[in-house]
Amino acid sequence: MLIRKLSDTRASDRNIVTDGWESARLLLKDEGMGFSFHITTMYAGKELHMHYKNHLEAVFVLQGEGTIEDLGTGEIHELKPGTLYALNAHDKHIVRPKTDIVTVCAFNPPVTGREVHDETGAYPADDSVVVLAS
Amino acid sequence: MLIRKLSDTRASDRNIVTDGWESARLLLKDEGMGFSFHITTMYAGKELHMHYKNHLEAVFVLQGEGTIEDLGTGEIHELKPGTLYALNAHDKHIVRPKTDIVTVCAFNPPVTGREVHDETGAYPADDSVVVLAS
Repeated sequence: MLIRKLSDTRASDRNIVTDGWESARLLLKDEGMGFSFHITTMYAGKELHMHYKNHLEAVFVLQGEGTIEDLGTGEIHELKPGTLYALNAHDKHIVRPKTDIVTVCAFNPPVTGREVHDETGAYPADDSVVVLAS
Repeated sequence: MLIRKLSDTRASDRNIVTDGWESARLLLKDEGMGFSFHITTMYAGKELHMHYKNHLEAVFVLQGEGTIEDLGTGEIHELKPGTLYALNAHDKHIVRPKTDIVTVCAFNPPVTGREVHDETGAYPADDSVVVLAS
């Protein structure tokens, strides 16, 4: 059994802070759960373009409000506490937080943690896991 | 992209209520995410004996307090908002909620939904997914 505290994770190198969002990675690939599990905050006023080409992701909103645009269909959905979106088809999307949005996220396959460090600068040519511009 | 609202799920047959806990299954096996994703409340004062022989589970506490006992090691851990426990070794355990504990849970492999209906009465002989007594 593994026990993780969000406060400990936020104080560790498993807490990633970028210009548009921050993410505390409670479980990564190394834990062997078959998914990774993150508490992620997307910042108010940002426009987050995301496309997880190699991962499926579920995102459950705990706090905050905004919208998500599905670039495949053009649909825009409201995000608020209690809403979950699942990127079951590697959906290209844009999240526009009106306020900071705090979420619980699960990824399959699990994120290794390495992708994130790449995001803070240039992306390796072979890193198609996370493509994010804010 | 799938959009799910907790309130809709709670009003549907994906919301399971038992004597010891209730669970809104936002994502089940059918969604094809490779994990299932639940909002589960464990009731105050119960003693929940659990053993997921065929699944790995991560549980993140949103609200409430209690303890979890790891029957493999004898250790007892506090549960409160911001604590995650991960059953990475099919750990036999007991959760004792002092108050109602609201959690986000992810299972790998995903729960089908069928196991739960079995829980409300007798367990099929071949159903070792969820063994719960409160």
